Amino acid sequence: MFSDEELIRILLEDCPYGDITTHGLGIGDVPARMRFAARAPMTLAGVEQAARLLELCGAGVRMHAPSGASVEAGATILEASAAAASLHRGYKTAQTLLEILGGVASAARAIVQAAREGAPACRVVCTRKHVPGIKRWALLAIEAGGAIPHRLGLSDSVLVFEQHRVLLDAGVTIDACIERLRARAPERRVSIEAESVEEAIACARAGADVVQVDKLDPAHVERIAQAFASLRQRPLLAAAGGIDERNAAAYARAGADLLVTSAPYYARPRDVRVEMRRDDA
Amino acid sequence: MFSDEELIRILLEDCPYGDITTHGLGIGDVPARMRFAARAPMTLAGVEQAARLLELCGAGVRMHAPSGASVEAGATILEASAAAASLHRGYKTAQTLLEILGGVASAARAIVQAAREGAPACRVVCTRKHVPGIKRWALLAIEAGGAIPHRLGLSDSVLVFEQHRVLLDAGVTIDACIERLRARAPERRVSIEAESVEEAIACARAGADVVQVDKLDPAHVERIAQAFASLRQRPLLAAAGGIDERNAAAYARAGADLLVTSAPYYARPRDVRVEMRRDDA
Amino acid sequence: MFSDEELIRILLEDCPYGDITTHGLGIGDVPARMRFAARAPMTLAGVEQAARLLELCGAGVRMHAPSGASVEAGATILEASAAAASLHRGYKTAQTLLEILGGVASAARAIVQAAREGAPACRVVCTRKHVPGIKRWALLAIEAGGAIPHRLGLSDSVLVFEQHRVLLDAGVTIDACIERLRARAPERRVSIEAESVEEAIACARAGADVVQVDKLDPAHVERIAQAFASLRQRPLLAAAGGIDERNAAAYARAGADLLVTSAPYYARPRDVRVEMRRDDA
Amino acid sequence: MFSDEELIRILLEDCPYGDITTHGLGIGDVPARMRFAARAPMTLAGVEQAARLLELCGAGVRMHAPSGASVEAGATILEASAAAASLHRGYKTAQTLLEILGGVASAARAIVQAAREGAPACRVVCTRKHVPGIKRWALLAIEAGGAIPHRLGLSDSVLVFEQHRVLLDAGVTIDACIERLRARAPERRVSIEAESVEEAIACARAGADVVQVDKLDPAHVERIAQAFASLRQRPLLAAAGGIDERNAAAYARAGADLLVTSAPYYARPRDVRVEMRRDDA
Amino acid sequence: MFSDEELIRILLEDCPYGDITTHGLGIGDVPARMRFAARAPMTLAGVEQAARLLELCGAGVRMHAPSGASVEAGATILEASAAAASLHRGYKTAQTLLEILGGVASAARAIVQAAREGAPACRVVCTRKHVPGIKRWALLAIEAGGAIPHRLGLSDSVLVFEQHRVLLDAGVTIDACIERLRARAPERRVSIEAESVEEAIACARAGADVVQVDKLDPAHVERIAQAFASLRQRPLLAAAGGIDERNAAAYARAGADLLVTSAPYYARPRDVRVEMRRDDA
Amino acid sequence: MFSDEELIRILLEDCPYGDITTHGLGIGDVPARMRFAARAPMTLAGVEQAARLLELCGAGVRMHAPSGASVEAGATILEASAAAASLHRGYKTAQTLLEILGGVASAARAIVQAAREGAPACRVVCTRKHVPGIKRWALLAIEAGGAIPHRLGLSDSVLVFEQHRVLLDAGVTIDACIERLRARAPERRVSIEAESVEEAIACARAGADVVQVDKLDPAHVERIAQAFASLRQRPLLAAAGGIDERNAAAYARAGADLLVTSAPYYARPRDVRVEMRRDDA
Repeated sequence: MFSDEELIRILLEDCPYGDITTHGLGIGDVPARMRFAARAPMTLAGVEQAARLLELCGAGVRMHAPSGASVEAGATILEASAAAASLHRGYKTAQTLLEILGGVASAARAIVQAAREGAPACRVVCTRKHVPGIKRWALLAIEAGGAIPHRLGLSDSVLVFEQHRVLLDAGVTIDACIERLRARAPERRVSIEAESVEEAIACARAGADVVQVDKLDPAHVERIAQAFASLRQRPLLAAAGGIDERNAAAYARAGADLLVTSAPYYARPRDVRVEMRRDDA
Repeated sequence: MFSDEELIRILLEDCPYGDITTHGLGIGDVPARMRFAARAPMTLAGVEQAARLLELCGAGVRMHAPSGASVEAGATILEASAAAASLHRGYKTAQTLLEILGGVASAARAIVQAAREGAPACRVVCTRKHVPGIKRWALLAIEAGGAIPHRLGLSDSVLVFEQHRVLLDAGVTIDACIERLRARAPERRVSIEAESVEEAIACARAGADVVQVDKLDPAHVERIAQAFASLRQRPLLAAAGGIDERNAAAYARAGADLLVTSAPYYARPRDVRVEMRRDDA
Repeated sequence: MFSDEELIRILLEDCPYGDITTHGLGIGDVPARMRFAARAPMTLAGVEQAARLLELCGAGVRMHAPSGASVEAGATILEASAAAASLHRGYKTAQTLLEILGGVASAARAIVQAAREGAPACRVVCTRKHVPGIKRWALLAIEAGGAIPHRLGLSDSVLVFEQHRVLLDAGVTIDACIERLRARAPERRVSIEAESVEEAIACARAGADVVQVDKLDPAHVERIAQAFASLRQRPLLAAAGGIDERNAAAYARAGADLLVTSAPYYARPRDVRVEMRRDDA
Repeated sequence: MFSDEELIRILLEDCPYGDITTHGLGIGDVPARMRFAARAPMTLAGVEQAARLLELCGAGVRMHAPSGASVEAGATILEASAAAASLHRGYKTAQTLLEILGGVASAARAIVQAAREGAPACRVVCTRKHVPGIKRWALLAIEAGGAIPHRLGLSDSVLVFEQHRVLLDAGVTIDACIERLRARAPERRVSIEAESVEEAIACARAGADVVQVDKLDPAHVERIAQAFASLRQRPLLAAAGGIDERNAAAYARAGADLLVTSAPYYARPRDVRVEMRRDDA
Repeated sequence: MFSDEELIRILLEDCPYGDITTHGLGIGDVPARMRFAARAPMTLAGVEQAARLLELCGAGVRMHAPSGASVEAGATILEASAAAASLHRGYKTAQTLLEILGGVASAARAIVQAAREGAPACRVVCTRKHVPGIKRWALLAIEAGGAIPHRLGLSDSVLVFEQHRVLLDAGVTIDACIERLRARAPERRVSIEAESVEEAIACARAGADVVQVDKLDPAHVERIAQAFASLRQRPLLAAAGGIDERNAAAYARAGADLLVTSAPYYARPRDVRVEMRRDDA
Repeated sequence: MFSDEELIRILLEDCPYGDITTHGLGIGDVPARMRFAARAPMTLAGVEQAARLLELCGAGVRMHAPSGASVEAGATILEASAAAASLHRGYKTAQTLLEILGGVASAARAIVQAAREGAPACRVVCTRKHVPGIKRWALLAIEAGGAIPHRLGLSDSVLVFEQHRVLLDAGVTIDACIERLRARAPERRVSIEAESVEEAIACARAGADVVQVDKLDPAHVERIAQAFASLRQRPLLAAAGGIDERNAAAYARAGADLLVTSAPYYARPRDVRVEMRRDDA
């Protein structure tokens, strides 16, 4: 949910005081039409916001496909018509939005598909390591690609890192940690990041709801998954660290329930072509 | 220039209502210290803002290198000390900022160096195709890498695209366009994007201050540069479209004065390690 | 975490264009001192923010007790000294903040204590039914009183209400609901609100992590708790609806793990006296 | 007057990143309808804003009664229809708004009616002691109940408290105070809070426009009113401190022109039932 | 009261992405010092805010005179020292602020002095017809010049214009209007704008607290003042419409208690010279 | 481009908590109509924003002339109809906006016309010395009058002042300055302010794109223009300092290409009459 105000702030970032090229050329009043089309196959994201951006510039807009759709090369994403001044005010911002968010969504989709090929129930969850300040855009895009937010931040979830554990008093056990955390956050799952196979198993035995391992290879993940299988209370096993489209299937097959990744946020944008023409008829 | 308010909004995005893990573990009051270090060689960006973020969390911070510095693997970037609650509130946000902005700056630096190797006077200018809404962060990072902003947006510069030209009345010449633009924006340079070698030369003859070509290979750029050399009023020649670290030197050698690129914005983050420890002594 | 900007906006709400009484009386420059004191026993909240408010008005401030502390009647909360214009600009806002947040915290504390008397492990969790828009103030206050946020909102937690269930297609079972929810939100607990003892037990059997009952009396809660005791996977039992200081112990004794309440948000403010005097030395 | 932006910020507080329960259950696209109804008699406030909130979520809304109306138990307040995702995004926030503001309005109405029974011309004016930062919501609600804002803050009105008087130089009389205040704020009434019957009469004789007494009982107020009756220039007599629905009539009968109260702000919310159903037909 | 955030927003308006001249010249690190001095006699306003602006740019600042002071030509207003990049970032904005606000304050001061010469008790009150959106700046400046805000807006004061009266039902008398207004706003003065001498007297007889006349010349104002003198309850007489430095004394002598003017808001800025020099020593 | 949010913030500045006069008089529901008309010839600016302001108050609005139009005395600018409460909420703000912006636009138009009479190609460019914080309003108004923004601020343009030059190391020539600036800002014109005829010519010879002179009289400007005429690369000649409607033609005739002025920002508002009437028919 993005307010008009937020979208206008984005437009003003690019065009705070008028478009001097369009105005200078004297073409502002020419009736025009533009079409946004995918240059290559892509999963769309942000189409609704791009459409609204253009409406706020004064354009009539027709969406051809929603966020979350995967389209072929050449597919029309949206069309807009208005006086040229309106179209030129918004076109590059709308295009950039579609390209960058489409890149994130497409990358997320690729990892999700790879994970499913590895194991149909395996889920891809994306971290909070997006550009600070744009979480709503980032989550919108990864969800368009079929991924799920991992944790929203520090206030909604419990995840114990090595950076916490080094600060504990000597002798505080994992069991004690979990007990403390359940008292403070009884309605939250307790997740713990483990550094090794042994530690992962220890966390599971101590009753963690989710055990997350970082930068272990699929073979080690598999050993942990096998160990978990024999537990009465099997926690979720989350694999993090370097997960991407190429290795997702292997981690899924190894038995990871969750693949934790930041990779989609840094995906290359997908090119979107913008065709402009007069609309005199 | 980033206000405290802006930085706090970023912190609140990640931690709107308290850090339940640190609090739940009961380690909030433990005196602690953390160190941010480069995992691999990188050019830094956003160090001052990351430091201020941590100060706003209540930490004492010591910066070891400023934005713009290129550091070796293992180099300390900054250190912070405070109660654990303060450090944990800000550490991931500060780390993500340093990693993402460092990635942009490092990528910009690599292109700048390649361009200089091709031709010492060649400049790398970065487009406005960053994530919409974060222009100040994006420009801060590419400038840390030695690149220059291309145009800030539609209000500060004149750049004629094909998308403008198709809207002109039939028979309006390039000369007429330039004349109109100079009347509206006498204190701005007039830049025109040309689609071909011939068009580039025509724009130059018509008196454009900058001629930008898109997706031409270095050989074509060289032909244009040679044609420009014989003109009485030689415009700047800008090459855009697919410019990156690998081809920048070739374009520079071909005679481009400016390399126009969006590539740094989509660079992979550079890893920054955060070491946390008790600070009881 | 409240930014100076947020606190100043609150000050400007009360004093947008100067304090005409203080100014009109000609006492703005008189050195003055004021003391905030509890009129009756209370649990404090917002003391740090009230202190900062006064500092932003130009006062030197000394805090006598932190948020979360329970103080006796007459206890000094904070003292401030400055020119009268500074003190008068902020005093009523600081006082109102301390009184209202102190009321919330004190009410939360009372319920927490009652619950503990009923059963030491029973937790009090506060709903999202505070005044919309002030969640950070509301949570700060209930946490100062020892309560815990229930859910932050719709994005961080799973809670199925009757208002969801009536929209399901006929024949969708609770088991199916839980399965769907785990797929979408694998790292979140699944909570379901049940309308009756039978439904509560059915939800537990279906594998809900938390079963919440609304407006059942302690006797019914006890029957549910007993039924849960025999399950292999015992969910948390949360009692909601009309929980307050008077009945919290009974619900806790009945076996509720969690008491879900909005009552503290609507508590009467606790009176804080402000004594002002000249500080001429 | 509340902007869409303000209302969206409130919605985002509760649902920043999507509603995982509705989405997880797969019911987001189900056509649905909901009805808000009063559980008990109440005076409405914020209905227009609640309706707009729901429209911003994508719902079609029909208001059945405006803010300011007093309705019976069971009365429909508003109805909304949309896909379930739209309704669930806004329903709890709209409900909370109606409940809390309705509580304030209903409490204000009760005091207003009591005051009128005591004396038809007696007015109820509400203080600035609402939750800091929400003045527009607070005033909207008390005005829906027929009360009037007392003072908006420090910039729009003159009111001398004991906290001002202790800072005056020795020997500055009430007459001198009033003269100074009239010079600074000639277009404002001068109000003075008096501590006793005698002081009230002295303030009146000195020419105060409004004399406010704090925590005097009706008998004392009556003595002041009688004394005022014989003055050539009779000021308004305002009674403050502990005024509520139970004692308002007595204060009005005693001769207070104005009853100054904060009580409505802390009133318990009025319950509003939300019925949800499929809207397939 | 202006927050740092507000001041930074003003700085960013002028310098959103760095100062390319200072940076391009390579002088950013040169230690420098600048001095702001009045070019002609002026009353200062906004000095504290200009000083803070410069501090936020990184400068050490010394104020030589506060807002409200009247200084001679050549007088130093403030001095700042820092690296050149800091000084250049803020100097023009600080200068413009001092010049424009100083112009308003000086013009207000001139009218105030003229009014006092006409009649010592006559007050100058400034309207709400400043640039919309900058009320705090506008009032700060006229108060620095010794004028007083007239009304803050529609919510804090009662003022009946012709534009209200034409909307009344036929037969509603001025007496009835005043009665209605006192019921709604008992703690506010009732002001009425009269169109003629006769109407002014009628309003006074009806009991208006303030009678405002628009665009009457001093002779007519004098007739009204004389008529008012014989009333038992004499209202304040406010003269509005075209009041400025040249005619203020005449209106004051004519017996106006208040001169209502917008003139200072549109005063020419007062020139402030900025001297910059290296500060190497 | 002004968002609804921005316009509502302006309305709330004037009417944060309701219009007590209109409400108190009981005329809020009366159907009414108002007409805004020019009292004297004027160039309009901000008409679209004023119209939107009134729509946001609930009025139906009809614009009679757009921003940029020059109208005769008595011409209707816009008409609005709604319940009186809606019209009164916005009328003064809309009127003030039209008056102040119309004053700026009319003054800009007068200078533009004078300049054209002096020399048809001469351009009027307005400085950044408007009230800080309102640049979009200021530029909208001067552009409505046919003027052009000079520089937007420090980030979009290069302009060397004396205040820069005093900070250079001894011996740095103008040529060196220009070279440095071209390296940093290759796509920007380099402008230099010269203090004298000789310096202006030196700057031109050194290759400045624009030479700006401050407070030289037309005779000196003419000498510079003549000297420039013989150069192979003739820079633009900009005259600044005290340019206004009376001397613009002389400067244009003297050969200035650009007249740099702040005068329109400080122009007196143009009066706009608002007629209100009942709309019962």
